[in-house]
Amino acid sequence: MHSIPIGVLGASGYAGRELCALITRHPRLSLAFATANEQRGKTAELPGGGKVTFVATDDAPLADAALVFSAMPHGASKVWVERARAAGAKAVDLSADLRIGNDGGATPYGLTEAWRERIRGADLVANPGCYPTAILLGLLPLLEQGLIAKGATIGASAASGVTGAGFSARTDLLFGEVTENFRAYGVGNTHRHLNEMRAMVAELGADADLLFTPHLLPAARGILATMTVPLTRELPSVLDPWTARYANEPFIELVQDPPELRHVAHRNVARIAVMKVAHVRTPTLLVFSAIDNLMKGAAGQALQNANLMLGLDETLGLPA
Amino acid sequence: MHSIPIGVLGASGYAGRELCALITRHPRLSLAFATANEQRGKTAELPGGGKVTFVATDDAPLADAALVFSAMPHGASKVWVERARAAGAKAVDLSADLRIGNDGGATPYGLTEAWRERIRGADLVANPGCYPTAILLGLLPLLEQGLIAKGATIGASAASGVTGAGFSARTDLLFGEVTENFRAYGVGNTHRHLNEMRAMVAELGADADLLFTPHLLPAARGILATMTVPLTRELPSVLDPWTARYANEPFIELVQDPPELRHVAHRNVARIAVMKVAHVRTPTLLVFSAIDNLMKGAAGQALQNANLMLGLDETLGLPA
Amino acid sequence: MHSIPIGVLGASGYAGRELCALITRHPRLSLAFATANEQRGKTAELPGGGKVTFVATDDAPLADAALVFSAMPHGASKVWVERARAAGAKAVDLSADLRIGNDGGATPYGLTEAWRERIRGADLVANPGCYPTAILLGLLPLLEQGLIAKGATIGASAASGVTGAGFSARTDLLFGEVTENFRAYGVGNTHRHLNEMRAMVAELGADADLLFTPHLLPAARGILATMTVPLTRELPSVLDPWTARYANEPFIELVQDPPELRHVAHRNVARIAVMKVAHVRTPTLLVFSAIDNLMKGAAGQALQNANLMLGLDETLGLPA
Amino acid sequence: MHSIPIGVLGASGYAGRELCALITRHPRLSLAFATANEQRGKTAELPGGGKVTFVATDDAPLADAALVFSAMPHGASKVWVERARAAGAKAVDLSADLRIGNDGGATPYGLTEAWRERIRGADLVANPGCYPTAILLGLLPLLEQGLIAKGATIGASAASGVTGAGFSARTDLLFGEVTENFRAYGVGNTHRHLNEMRAMVAELGADADLLFTPHLLPAARGILATMTVPLTRELPSVLDPWTARYANEPFIELVQDPPELRHVAHRNVARIAVMKVAHVRTPTLLVFSAIDNLMKGAAGQALQNANLMLGLDETLGLPA
Repeated sequence: MHSIPIGVLGASGYAGRELCALITRHPRLSLAFATANEQRGKTAELPGGGKVTFVATDDAPLADAALVFSAMPHGASKVWVERARAAGAKAVDLSADLRIGNDGGATPYGLTEAWRERIRGADLVANPGCYPTAILLGLLPLLEQGLIAKGATIGASAASGVTGAGFSARTDLLFGEVTENFRAYGVGNTHRHLNEMRAMVAELGADADLLFTPHLLPAARGILATMTVPLTRELPSVLDPWTARYANEPFIELVQDPPELRHVAHRNVARIAVMKVAHVRTPTLLVFSAIDNLMKGAAGQALQNANLMLGLDETLGLPA
Repeated sequence: MHSIPIGVLGASGYAGRELCALITRHPRLSLAFATANEQRGKTAELPGGGKVTFVATDDAPLADAALVFSAMPHGASKVWVERARAAGAKAVDLSADLRIGNDGGATPYGLTEAWRERIRGADLVANPGCYPTAILLGLLPLLEQGLIAKGATIGASAASGVTGAGFSARTDLLFGEVTENFRAYGVGNTHRHLNEMRAMVAELGADADLLFTPHLLPAARGILATMTVPLTRELPSVLDPWTARYANEPFIELVQDPPELRHVAHRNVARIAVMKVAHVRTPTLLVFSAIDNLMKGAAGQALQNANLMLGLDETLGLPA
Repeated sequence: MHSIPIGVLGASGYAGRELCALITRHPRLSLAFATANEQRGKTAELPGGGKVTFVATDDAPLADAALVFSAMPHGASKVWVERARAAGAKAVDLSADLRIGNDGGATPYGLTEAWRERIRGADLVANPGCYPTAILLGLLPLLEQGLIAKGATIGASAASGVTGAGFSARTDLLFGEVTENFRAYGVGNTHRHLNEMRAMVAELGADADLLFTPHLLPAARGILATMTVPLTRELPSVLDPWTARYANEPFIELVQDPPELRHVAHRNVARIAVMKVAHVRTPTLLVFSAIDNLMKGAAGQALQNANLMLGLDETLGLPA
Repeated sequence: MHSIPIGVLGASGYAGRELCALITRHPRLSLAFATANEQRGKTAELPGGGKVTFVATDDAPLADAALVFSAMPHGASKVWVERARAAGAKAVDLSADLRIGNDGGATPYGLTEAWRERIRGADLVANPGCYPTAILLGLLPLLEQGLIAKGATIGASAASGVTGAGFSARTDLLFGEVTENFRAYGVGNTHRHLNEMRAMVAELGADADLLFTPHLLPAARGILATMTVPLTRELPSVLDPWTARYANEPFIELVQDPPELRHVAHRNVARIAVMKVAHVRTPTLLVFSAIDNLMKGAAGQALQNANLMLGLDETLGLPA
């Protein structure tokens, strides 16, 4: 059985290297090329072992790949995805360029558990942001089942490890600035990821606002979203919407206790817990959703989508 | 000028040692004794330098102290505070035993900026919990000025460094379990600190619910509370309530950007920022409040109160 | 093909859970039982996903297992290993009880790369300590080839993540005590691991002293040993002894730059680098050796040995 | 009593901001200006509270200062120190430019405890590097008293927090690259600090080599040096050389147990411990020396020197 050649554009960042590592261990895929302009000709270690040597993006043999992942920066990615498509390759874009809310919604939005059938037949998929993945997977059953109070504000306070900010030489991401620290950023509901979340809330027919406040953790990886959701009515059994919706999902874990980042690290899963709230008059649920921002929040979900686009078993090559 | 003798009960924990350190550097106070039953006879290093030798609590010469701090465990503290009072010493209880919401409210609640005049004349003060200090100082102007929407739910998602859980030999607090991790605990609005916060909200005349979700940070110290507050109406200038209320407060810092834990570490301050919220129909404010849980959230505020109780300048011996 | 049943004694600690995780993912092995007296009846999460439920050690069906790993505490392990052997199971003891230097050397010492043939035929193997694994694998080529100066002192300064101290409720291992800290321990050449290292140095015919100084890192896992080795003579090509000795070793990585802990994390490898030293008159080499203390330093090497003892491919089920 | 005006060149880095903070809290000094070309016009928070606004270095009113600290980069510092001297200001250069071993040794080397009298009368002092401060203070009694074996190799394995690498936008210093990691760098005895250490060893009359291996800790601040020192003979009481030499030193702490970084953090002290070594034939001592790299290793020692140069009490304004 021949392996399927895959390309990675923008492969020197955190998500790009994670993609290269997943591809090199995948039973059916092989890495055709990995591009990184500033690192061209250089070799980097991959997470979990192994190495990759980068070529210049302009030198990428796009036509050699059956599918191309783009982990290029926002803004620069779109044109490369178009070139890959023009060369005959399928494409998964990990940037925000083609995501719902940013680009009219023409491209299937790769939140696999929400839009699996659209993804299965697609040649091009826009992979969700890491925060939207955590938050939307937590809310999906409530959104789809119309359980959120009309006009209500959903509170989504979330915290991410620093790899979420990318492999960038920024002084505010230095170890000396992040250790023993914690702070919010992108505040006042202004973060770039808000668009796609608002668009998906509307797409799923809910009439609610989202108040999203991201924070930077002194940790390398992982996102925990803590959500408070006003309901149309008290639910007799709070976990029911999730158990019903996610019964057969291979990458969703419903748990009793609040999920911990370490339990989802290096795994392509979303771990979700739901709690009743005491001492509050408005019927309200507390929903926790934890992912590894580089796996289910980026490279893992991208590969999950690619598996579907290539007609493979969705779970192939994914650590769960 | 003679120094004033001070005792510390339960001095071997994080807050107790911080108190001993503050007292030994205070220009007017001196440490008369520090008790720790399991550590009696042993010497410990104090944060910032210096040492203390512990005596058994039963051997504490309570009558030698003008004022006694109790950092004894919840439940065990009350009786020792009574003994200190019976011996003629003033007392500040850092446990939850005598706090509003837990004990009828007869003892002045030591949230200094809220109840300064009651504290100034008091012989006994119940020092607030660390989370309530951060959250109530953030909300105080809105609560006092009646700006919170009736029946609304105030969201308070907060994260604390592990010293907030005390100096306890618990496997869930081991470095190996906390590093690269993040998780909620005490969830569903059930944390022990909820009582005093609800009581203070009511005491200040607000008709609102509080939904409090604490999280454990991979950091040693600091608390950041991120609050979403539905308002009765849009405020033309969102910071006005805070600038008016806190104009002359020596330990309140109002800032433009979201506060960072590292900027309040080892300091007896609360740093507060307020933001408008976009894309949400209900008029809502985002309020951040950051403190060092061991300083303004424990030992520092306790000393701030003790200064007032002893007729000293409130700021003496406090790092700001 | 039937899977081979394996038991784990003392499975609730860090190494024990790592063993359970490796066994459950192994293509030829299955977990027959996992014991933990204090946690009996309880279920724990395994690293990388999956769960295990513990039984009391007294209830362990020893005879059901083809091989038993003991991760029991030092002192308590020996008797259980004897019981497992008496019940007909092969055994790998991860405690210090049967290691060379501690027990006469009758039991093969499971430093796989040094004693592979003795291990292959063995029914019982004493698995090395984590520090000795890192240090001896770094020194092995020099020791075997007689290149270390007679009577010289080999300096071995090493640093370990806190999981090396076990899953113990000790206040000195709390996050608040370890973060932003670094310290030596077991100093003056007194650490428990010294015996087995000295015995192996002698066993390999070298006449040199070892000066071992372990340190505790603010990190969860990994050991880096930094060794200075006085030589009998300058080596024309310093890496030659290692490239010759380790040419066909699947779990030894020779690298040019100083090895980093993150590159060996969660992998059953030792990564070794060797450097010339400038400005020093005595011919001296600088040797670095990095391992994951829970993998190559404990569970991984134990499984590597078990594979050999069971007649399987040595690399089966081991992440490299 | 008028305050003495002090300037800081290159004030936006870690050491520069620490200097500004120390000066603003000093009882006799005041901050005349703080320069930072890229940050000119901007305001930064100081450690421990307070703020500073930077001016361009070209705009520094050098003649207004009685003393100028230069925390400019190596290479760029020397010319600015000369300009400050030409303008009539005394100067402390924190760069390597004028240090012994790098510049002929004409400028007094500001290792205060070694060269106090030369510093007291000086108009210009070259402040030592952070590693040399830790290592030389640990070795000083042995060096001065001729106790180190002739021709021997002193092993100095040291680990530093990342602020030692400066406030630089480098990807290898990102939180995501440093957390849960540990590695050596500048290996093979090639680190820039080696020159000044070798020069001081020679200056003090010792005939020994130094083998220095620095490591990068997953911590913000602090240096621990672990040194193995071959002696001319066994010492009956190993701590004697240190107790005799450092009896009256205000900033040297001799301790029984291995020193911990957290106990020297934010303090201008060197904490030193000395241990006998067992099982080694060559008489050898184990010496530990711990400092805060930004305090005793940079800004604190610079101020200690400045106090002497200005005729003030050496300990003024320094946290111990």
